[in-house]
Amino acid sequence: MAKRVKGFRFASTHAGIKRDEQPDLGLIVAEAPATAAAVFTRNRVVAAPVRLSRTTLRRNQGKVSAVVVNSGNANACTGAAGLADARLMAALTAEELGVNKRNVLVASTGVIGERLPMEAIELGIEEVARRPLVGGFDGFADSILTTDAGRKVAARKVDVGGQRVTLLGCTKGAGMIAPNMATTLSFVMTDARVGRAALDRSLHGSVTRTYNAITVDGDTSTNDMVLVLASGAAGNRALSSKDQRLFDRALEDLLDELAHKLMHGGEGVHHVVAVEVTGAKSERAAQRIARAVANSPLVKTAIAGGDPNWGRVISAAGNAGVPLNPDRLDLWFDNVQLVASGERVADSAAEKRAAGVMKRPNYALRLDLNAGIARGRYLACDLSHEYVTINADYRT
Amino acid sequence: MAKRVKGFRFASTHAGIKRDEQPDLGLIVAEAPATAAAVFTRNRVVAAPVRLSRTTLRRNQGKVSAVVVNSGNANACTGAAGLADARLMAALTAEELGVNKRNVLVASTGVIGERLPMEAIELGIEEVARRPLVGGFDGFADSILTTDAGRKVAARKVDVGGQRVTLLGCTKGAGMIAPNMATTLSFVMTDARVGRAALDRSLHGSVTRTYNAITVDGDTSTNDMVLVLASGAAGNRALSSKDQRLFDRALEDLLDELAHKLMHGGEGVHHVVAVEVTGAKSERAAQRIARAVANSPLVKTAIAGGDPNWGRVISAAGNAGVPLNPDRLDLWFDNVQLVASGERVADSAAEKRAAGVMKRPNYALRLDLNAGIARGRYLACDLSHEYVTINADYRT
Repeated sequence: MAKRVKGFRFASTHAGIKRDEQPDLGLIVAEAPATAAAVFTRNRVVAAPVRLSRTTLRRNQGKVSAVVVNSGNANACTGAAGLADARLMAALTAEELGVNKRNVLVASTGVIGERLPMEAIELGIEEVARRPLVGGFDGFADSILTTDAGRKVAARKVDVGGQRVTLLGCTKGAGMIAPNMATTLSFVMTDARVGRAALDRSLHGSVTRTYNAITVDGDTSTNDMVLVLASGAAGNRALSSKDQRLFDRALEDLLDELAHKLMHGGEGVHHVVAVEVTGAKSERAAQRIARAVANSPLVKTAIAGGDPNWGRVISAAGNAGVPLNPDRLDLWFDNVQLVASGERVADSAAEKRAAGVMKRPNYALRLDLNAGIARGRYLACDLSHEYVTINADYRT
Repeated sequence: MAKRVKGFRFASTHAGIKRDEQPDLGLIVAEAPATAAAVFTRNRVVAAPVRLSRTTLRRNQGKVSAVVVNSGNANACTGAAGLADARLMAALTAEELGVNKRNVLVASTGVIGERLPMEAIELGIEEVARRPLVGGFDGFADSILTTDAGRKVAARKVDVGGQRVTLLGCTKGAGMIAPNMATTLSFVMTDARVGRAALDRSLHGSVTRTYNAITVDGDTSTNDMVLVLASGAAGNRALSSKDQRLFDRALEDLLDELAHKLMHGGEGVHHVVAVEVTGAKSERAAQRIARAVANSPLVKTAIAGGDPNWGRVISAAGNAGVPLNPDRLDLWFDNVQLVASGERVADSAAEKRAAGVMKRPNYALRLDLNAGIARGRYLACDLSHEYVTINADYRT
């Protein structure tokens, strides 16, 4: 897998925010200001670094020289002082790198409600800014982790505008692993030259079908952020609409891989299940039903138990607040059909095959509404004993 | 506690639907047609008995002579044949009792997707109809249980219209105990004479603040039903508006007690937590936020772990899709304040006191939005290891 992408350097260190010796401060440096697009949390309670970075990107027209990230502390619910701390992180980074602080983004992840240890962070920023290759991309990818089981990275290459361009991404933790840790951070760097508006459209489209269509516990956190940076260092020609589609597909594909790794990387997750709803009247209706099934604790415990409990799936679908005709529902576990026209068609042999499907680490629950042609998909996971152990015992 | 209410008789038997020897068929007989009001599941996938009873009540203007209930089988996802079975249950009951089948309601609870054992049910109906006092109210209350830990009954007396009237109610199982069992059934009988429209208003108001404001796993089932029957046998005068308020309060109070018993009665539930949201711009907004907090798996595991994790509460509130100003939030665990104006105010001593509050079987999470005067409440419970064990292992 590619570990480099033209126009970017990465660094990381253990600044002392986390108690263990793991890296907890990371830096992305763009050799020249990169074009940026971002999607932020929809939670109404927004952490200081998200408030700052959102404003920064709006004001600087999406030009980014550096991103400074810390793990171990989310800088959320910290009021005006927390916002000042985030601003100081940007200013210190800008000063060390000799760039405009208006082009520096900040991201944080970790415990909520505690002030950042700013002295440790200041020393850490000095260190990573002065040695901007230490640790490389892998070190950076490690520095954003909290209680994640391991590093989550992915890469793609695609030929567009007469050049082979690279997309390189990393991500961290979903709800199940780090609940009151701020949840999802994701960074994708590409050397493609892409216009800001096109990059923005590409990211929003991709995120809708990937990061915004996964659920572990139905919550979005105070710090969620997906950021794409394009350096243009690959020197490709302006993208034709065909090139743009190729680039969009590569980005979505990359984010889908990262989203899967996010789900699988969580402790307590043994199965990642695609809830695929077809035959809907609209994509929105299909997504809502897929989401209701994926969020249902009863479905998620059935996934944990390997029980082909189709009644829970049907009942959860009926609970989505979307009109549907129960007498038309067809349901498969991968290719094993258990329900046809709203009634059980499975004999005990079919249920046994479905139970076999549920032993797989990845499989699909396919629900056909037989009411239209729109479709939607959500990724679900199991609700296991480990989930309860981790989340009931965490922090205390 | 009162175990009788004028104008009604109760009977129950083991018909053989359940494998054990527990009662699984129950009968309510009104000596003269009673006035009825009901609230049914909002799930779009509706079981046959609910379809039938909903239609019956619409057609007969809310007059009910008998209700026949079985547990052990929900008669849900059973198609046209299932609807015919439900109709047959009503017809057999009417025939045995010599009443009009248009005045007979049917309710079922149990596993989804299997046809009812109609021969056993037919024999059972003959038995309960011919010996309409066997088991009495307690026996009836037992006959509607599925995997509930025990009987759930409550009673109230109130003086209205020159008479002391009785309200007597029973309920069964919420999601945590019997997930793909059809969830909530509740029956309330009163000897008060109340008009149909007033009874209907009274029930809908009460249910909004009680049964529709509890959550175990966020799902409503295919079979949920709350039914109130008024015999008028107390002989009270027509209710004045003051009397009506007294009656309404007694009904709400009774349903609140049953709702609490429903929550506490579930295996795996050790804490029932009132999420109280105040200072909202509207009751609807307050309810939505209370619901989001009560449904959050991260909050529910924190309840299970006894961890005063206020960050999860704030984050879940921010996730409700309702505008709120995070810098104005105040949060208490009972009387221990942990957050003021969106920031942590608790020292470690206060967090210890909050952890003490969380050992109680009942306590409140009180969130003040400081944005208005409306309020809302939802009852939440813990998401425990027992929940996962029961729901992951159930059925298989």
